[in-house]
Amino acid sequence: MDGAEVLAGVSDGIGAAPDAPLARLVASLLVVRCSGHLADGQRRYPRWELDNATLQRLLGSGVGGVILLGGSAAELRLRTRQLQAWAATDLLLCADVEEGVGQRFEGASWLVPPLALGRLHGDDPAASEELAERYGRCSGREARALGLNWVLGPVCDVNNNPANPVINVRAWGETPATAGALAAAFVRGAQAEGVLCCAKHFPGHGDTASDSHLELPLLPHSRERLEDVELPPFRAAIAAGVASVMTAHLLLPELDRERPATLSAAVLTQLLRHDLGFGGLVVTDALVMEAITAHHGAGEAAVLALEAGADLVLMPADADAAMAGIVAAVQQGRLGRERLEASAERRRQALASLRGSSQAAAGSVAEARPEPLGPLAWAGSAAADASAPLGPLSNGPISSDQQLALELVHRSLRHQGGRVPLPAGSLGAAPAINLIRVDTALGCPFLQPTAPALTRATAAGFRPVVLDGCSPSPWWIGSCEASGPNDAPDSAAESPATGAPKAAAGPLDLARLGEGPVLLQLFVRGNPFRGSAAGREPWDAVIRQLQAAGRLAGLAVYGSPYLWESLQPLLEDDIPAAWSPGQMPLAQAELLAALGLGSPSGRGDGFTD
Amino acid sequence: MDGAEVLAGVSDGIGAAPDAPLARLVASLLVVRCSGHLADGQRRYPRWELDNATLQRLLGSGVGGVILLGGSAAELRLRTRQLQAWAATDLLLCADVEEGVGQRFEGASWLVPPLALGRLHGDDPAASEELAERYGRCSGREARALGLNWVLGPVCDVNNNPANPVINVRAWGETPATAGALAAAFVRGAQAEGVLCCAKHFPGHGDTASDSHLELPLLPHSRERLEDVELPPFRAAIAAGVASVMTAHLLLPELDRERPATLSAAVLTQLLRHDLGFGGLVVTDALVMEAITAHHGAGEAAVLALEAGADLVLMPADADAAMAGIVAAVQQGRLGRERLEASAERRRQALASLRGSSQAAAGSVAEARPEPLGPLAWAGSAAADASAPLGPLSNGPISSDQQLALELVHRSLRHQGGRVPLPAGSLGAAPAINLIRVDTALGCPFLQPTAPALTRATAAGFRPVVLDGCSPSPWWIGSCEASGPNDAPDSAAESPATGAPKAAAGPLDLARLGEGPVLLQLFVRGNPFRGSAAGREPWDAVIRQLQAAGRLAGLAVYGSPYLWESLQPLLEDDIPAAWSPGQMPLAQAELLAALGLGSPSGRGDGFTD
Repeated sequence: MDGAEVLAGVSDGIGAAPDAPLARLVASLLVVRCSGHLADGQRRYPRWELDNATLQRLLGSGVGGVILLGGSAAELRLRTRQLQAWAATDLLLCADVEEGVGQRFEGASWLVPPLALGRLHGDDPAASEELAERYGRCSGREARALGLNWVLGPVCDVNNNPANPVINVRAWGETPATAGALAAAFVRGAQAEGVLCCAKHFPGHGDTASDSHLELPLLPHSRERLEDVELPPFRAAIAAGVASVMTAHLLLPELDRERPATLSAAVLTQLLRHDLGFGGLVVTDALVMEAITAHHGAGEAAVLALEAGADLVLMPADADAAMAGIVAAVQQGRLGRERLEASAERRRQALASLRGSSQAAAGSVAEARPEPLGPLAWAGSAAADASAPLGPLSNGPISSDQQLALELVHRSLRHQGGRVPLPAGSLGAAPAINLIRVDTALGCPFLQPTAPALTRATAAGFRPVVLDGCSPSPWWIGSCEASGPNDAPDSAAESPATGAPKAAAGPLDLARLGEGPVLLQLFVRGNPFRGSAAGREPWDAVIRQLQAAGRLAGLAVYGSPYLWESLQPLLEDDIPAAWSPGQMPLAQAELLAALGLGSPSGRGDGFTD
Repeated sequence: MDGAEVLAGVSDGIGAAPDAPLARLVASLLVVRCSGHLADGQRRYPRWELDNATLQRLLGSGVGGVILLGGSAAELRLRTRQLQAWAATDLLLCADVEEGVGQRFEGASWLVPPLALGRLHGDDPAASEELAERYGRCSGREARALGLNWVLGPVCDVNNNPANPVINVRAWGETPATAGALAAAFVRGAQAEGVLCCAKHFPGHGDTASDSHLELPLLPHSRERLEDVELPPFRAAIAAGVASVMTAHLLLPELDRERPATLSAAVLTQLLRHDLGFGGLVVTDALVMEAITAHHGAGEAAVLALEAGADLVLMPADADAAMAGIVAAVQQGRLGRERLEASAERRRQALASLRGSSQAAAGSVAEARPEPLGPLAWAGSAAADASAPLGPLSNGPISSDQQLALELVHRSLRHQGGRVPLPAGSLGAAPAINLIRVDTALGCPFLQPTAPALTRATAAGFRPVVLDGCSPSPWWIGSCEASGPNDAPDSAAESPATGAPKAAAGPLDLARLGEGPVLLQLFVRGNPFRGSAAGREPWDAVIRQLQAAGRLAGLAVYGSPYLWESLQPLLEDDIPAAWSPGQMPLAQAELLAALGLGSPSGRGDGFTD
């Protein structure tokens, strides 16, 4: 169904003239998804990312928001201008840049995950909160410079469940007080730079052990418990003036036995609007997620969300169907038109607040002056200077943001032992292995061939062996018996099934890797013990195996604090080892420098030096 | 040494006032290298790619050319404008876009390698030549749209030596007549679109079996033999009006016992200028290559190249040292200033020819009107339209270029057998393996997670196993004995060393891969039999092994015709198998469609459908 058909549908539904203003009103409340790359053929997720023809049609008919993923900072800057030029209204342009804009768009700042500051908060709350505010400043400033005006953060979920597969290091804390203090500081920093923030995922997604991308998780807690644990960070973000709140696809039977939070009036209207007094924008999490689509069609899900109290509908499974469904619901009297107009008014106020804060930010931060959005900005702005096409980001992050990224890495780095011993003899003379474990090597943004995890180890004589979900199995499988690729032994505690021909047999089949000392580098986020591939991999047993063979040269863990905390106690005292919550090249460079592989770069550009 | 010191050096050398005009003249003859990405931290080859501060300094002091690698089409467009804005003179902006601009810059057209048309030429010379001219049109038009004005092609080497590790499928033919006819057609097409072309690598790099990136190859042929085989394609390109010729780092003792072609007056002045009558620009191949740097310093290599007859010096190992060396050579009377002025005049004429042809091209090709270069182009050009930031390339290649890319794939595709049988039962019910062999999985531009080689096989139930140089060894190594990662057995003919426990043992250790039928996909270019990793891998024995076990579901070869021609005769008649000279997503999609995996897309965007 295209835009014309939507208008026709308005007519058909009630046998009257098409209600173009209603269609336009409804369209303004949608946020659709596209790639940050320019060309259709460059989309990485073509199932979810609209093609340009559809995008141009929808924006031309009044769709009011776009969420972007993919592409570099330079591409994003061109893309956001293109989208605004196609649009019939001022757009909300957002992205999931929870860990710096560079997490999603290469060329901007990529910061350690928020939980790094959550961990610091217990020891030094003032420093941690000041860093969180600078984290927000950096994110807001860079988002604005690239044409975004809405940062989909901070995560306000309390990661009190280490088994959580979706929140984990994305959270700002493991306690309500820490998560709230840091999320509020982030909001203050980012919004001062002229973007909207978004507290998510209401009413709290931290204490779940299943993944709402795949199914609908259940949170059994009472209202009292929510007041104690889940809600305080949202209250703190609201007190800090957060412009929007994103709903969670969670069932909370103590609040609503039928509907997940995203579709629940008890959660969105009663709890969020009335009890917490939130007057800003309420946006759904992506309606295309399985927790919603398994139960509702695209039109019905959108209507239910608005009925429940949401203002904006994010990533409906079918934008045209969603708009048609909402229009029909209004015409049938199921959804009040004034209800939608109130949402549109909140949207207008949010955009208006940006124009004010943009001027304030421009006055206070001379080095990274944000520019006004809108189709007329192209010709007259600093970014039209061919020698500095991205304005302040034209040669990557400004120096103060580079310093912030480095300080965050240094503050959160943990290490033990001395330097990694170099393989005997001259470089490359002795065999030595750089064993890297990563979820997906293909297209991995932090493991390009220039990544320090590769180049610094290679420079020291360690030959890379990369394990991911598509590798031939590296595990010892008895007498060369069949096994699927990379299926780990069932349990770290069990010894291999059949008579082992060698003392060092299992869990790794070391003959597959080669001889020499092993530098083990594990890139693991999310839950390392259940429900993820890494959780089925017996890295504890590998540590024991390599130590027993005298072959563990060093250990690097990038990401999960829980994996580090489970492995670190197994290490002999003199084994060089370190953990960084970050996985990006800067974190690799600084962690390896701490282990004696290369010098601290202070640059994070993947140099081998 | 910085620019000021170069000027000071001019003074010091002769005890007179600094000769700024000489320094500027010398600078204009240099072509330095940078990344197509904007930020220093995004460089993929920081050892060879200048940082922005150095680049800006050199261009400001008059350096006249830049070769770019890396970044997307969108980034390249911004980058070329930035470079021109930094420059003190009109720039020559070039790239090694031999196989379409999309070979290097994502978002533009990525075409099959030239040898695909060379293979077609024997059967249908007229169609092949017409396609080569359209190939040139496409390349020239897109290069121009993104701000390049110099395409470093066509390769005029005759690939009469299948063991050639560096030319291979980059050549337009395996005979002099084919290579010449197609190279000339490419030149006509590209230069009509308003770019300069470059015939390379003079006097012919096709009959070498060593790699000049690593050492200095030797070509023992007489002048008569050169006239028969190597020179005709260059004569054809010159007759077609090619604007420039690139020298080869080759020793031809029959012409010059001392100096490689790049530094040889006998080759560049006597043979190219006098005997072949070439009046255009002569540019060296990259002087930073080991064949040169192993023997000469940066300054001396540049002086020798100019002395020999080169006009432009490409990628000196140290630009400042090269300029200082040239200036000193002039002041010492070793190199005539008028010699450099003649080169500068050729450079000016080449740039002037562009302005003329640009107007002609703009008049003839309305759909993809190139825009004039220069710092003033930014504000007034079509690309300043925010809704179409790359002009005609804003949503990828124009439709006629998409059709060309598809036609080239279809014309060059070879296949046998029927459809790949789907694994038994419903999707995913039976184990099946998609075994992919690629040089380097990390950062591989044609094997992103959306690549059809992955997604189409996954959709049909084949689970990916990816082998590259960093994989754990997939090879059968006897009784689980030690071996380095991915070290292939020495010879395909030999059977595994020790008592095999199974009939199907070796060369692949199938237990490492898992059960079920195997779809084998090999991405191999260059020489598959000597001097490359793939050449040591016994894919012929793997074919026999999988067929003996009844487990070969299909074979796909992307790249080398020589590998295909060695494996295809081993196949049982009913094994579905295909070869494409292209490795890009479009080639994958069309090849797999021919084998029954997905439908022809005609789009090449990696859709699974």
